[in-house]
Amino acid sequence: MQLTAQDKNFESRIRDSFSRQRFMEYLGATLTEIRAGYCEIEVPYKKELTQQHEFLHAGVIGTIADTSAGYAAFSLMEANSSVLTVEYKLNLMSPADGEKIIARSQVLKSGKTLTICRSDVFVQKNGVEKLCAAAQVTLIELSNRKDE
Amino acid sequence: MQLTAQDKNFESRIRDSFSRQRFMEYLGATLTEIRAGYCEIEVPYKKELTQQHEFLHAGVIGTIADTSAGYAAFSLMEANSSVLTVEYKLNLMSPADGEKIIARSQVLKSGKTLTICRSDVFVQKNGVEKLCAAAQVTLIELSNRKDE
Amino acid sequence: MQLTAQDKNFESRIRDSFSRQRFMEYLGATLTEIRAGYCEIEVPYKKELTQQHEFLHAGVIGTIADTSAGYAAFSLMEANSSVLTVEYKLNLMSPADGEKIIARSQVLKSGKTLTICRSDVFVQKNGVEKLCAAAQVTLIELSNRKDE
Amino acid sequence: MQLTAQDKNFESRIRDSFSRQRFMEYLGATLTEIRAGYCEIEVPYKKELTQQHEFLHAGVIGTIADTSAGYAAFSLMEANSSVLTVEYKLNLMSPADGEKIIARSQVLKSGKTLTICRSDVFVQKNGVEKLCAAAQVTLIELSNRKDE
Repeated sequence: MQLTAQDKNFESRIRDSFSRQRFMEYLGATLTEIRAGYCEIEVPYKKELTQQHEFLHAGVIGTIADTSAGYAAFSLMEANSSVLTVEYKLNLMSPADGEKIIARSQVLKSGKTLTICRSDVFVQKNGVEKLCAAAQVTLIELSNRKDE
Repeated sequence: MQLTAQDKNFESRIRDSFSRQRFMEYLGATLTEIRAGYCEIEVPYKKELTQQHEFLHAGVIGTIADTSAGYAAFSLMEANSSVLTVEYKLNLMSPADGEKIIARSQVLKSGKTLTICRSDVFVQKNGVEKLCAAAQVTLIELSNRKDE
Repeated sequence: MQLTAQDKNFESRIRDSFSRQRFMEYLGATLTEIRAGYCEIEVPYKKELTQQHEFLHAGVIGTIADTSAGYAAFSLMEANSSVLTVEYKLNLMSPADGEKIIARSQVLKSGKTLTICRSDVFVQKNGVEKLCAAAQVTLIELSNRKDE
Repeated sequence: MQLTAQDKNFESRIRDSFSRQRFMEYLGATLTEIRAGYCEIEVPYKKELTQQHEFLHAGVIGTIADTSAGYAAFSLMEANSSVLTVEYKLNLMSPADGEKIIARSQVLKSGKTLTICRSDVFVQKNGVEKLCAAAQVTLIELSNRKDE
């Protein structure tokens, strides 16, 4: 599908929104790439983010699977809209055992009200990436409610 | 469904596992209740956990929806098993605007290998609770792999 | 949650819509109950609806889990709206081994645009019901597009 | 991911299983392609399979999204195993308005017990395909329980 941004300034709009998410900062997340219909977010390993087996917590995986989908969708929305996650479904396939995790999200369908994305989350260990989770996410555009 | 714990000591086993989850501590989460087939986890508001509109981040909601399901399922498993989340699906229904969020998870089906739970997440504002998210979660029992 | 129908005639509107669904007739499905925010649909066993182990096919289970959610949601919508399923997630918990299956769906949240339902599907064998599947469903109201 | 079938005869095993599914016959479904980790199933339009707006029913879409995932997963399993769907999540993105629908399912992760697939469902109208639904499916291998 050909995906075209309606708002030329989507990147600065998204980077600004991302920077206002205190939880992203707390997790140490970085928005590493944004294009029309695509977004990539990374979180490096730190002990504070682990579960009982010392791997990155599924909650961190879910957070960036969802947030990257949100911004992939948001890149195609109008300048004065907001985006909200309606729901997502996440399969956890391998432990997040590595030095960082990377969520890559792609818009599947960009509708008038709803957008559907797929997110793949990879764990990188010694520089080698492995798919550790996969999500399908539904987002809604709130028109005329500018994201701050 | 009548749910009976196989391991009499499930509560101490679960509280111990919970205490080894660094991410729970980082979020400020508390395991407020555990029974056979049921678990409740709370997270009080703090600014570090918010999204761009200053509400608690969906990632925090997803994390406790999943973790409470994990321990609800784990309560019914054998003493020397581990539990892993296979997948979950989360609907976000209202912004988490309040002083704390509370995830309550109940086992729907406890099978030999897989357990299915439903989690409801409530936001409490001025002492009044409101349903803000609902999840359905699939978990797997790993036999003979004690949780540490 | 207190659920109130906006359209007093929702039952006839829904029964009319159901009767126009050729696939419901083909499956032998019956709309056994409709209330504000609630719907129940049954399908009796017939060989044409089975999978390779002679139980009712998961596709039939999914169909009525979704359709009952659609009408539970539709009962709360305006008279000149249509309803569409955005997405659903279904856990299959036991084989549909019995003389009929019954889907019961309840609205969890009825919003301005989106409605969230949970559906439980039971299989009845020798008159005894057993939960065989559980779904969580998201639906959208299309305003001013009357369902035929 | 490199996907290799353990059972050289997976195609005949799967075609035999498919042919024993009475519901596939009732829907008029055809298994159009099977490879290691991949399966494609088609259903041509017929009035008996429609919803109230005369498009193919979401239940038919869900059925082949799930069944194609089941056989994609089954292609990688041992000869004397059975496969069961644990759960699936389906987004419906466009009405199934056309002469046939085609589900294409690909294995994302093939584990010892669980397999994860993604299914895309296309509607073909006047020979042109359009993505109308997308699913993510979890399946389980039942060892030493031959599929009939």
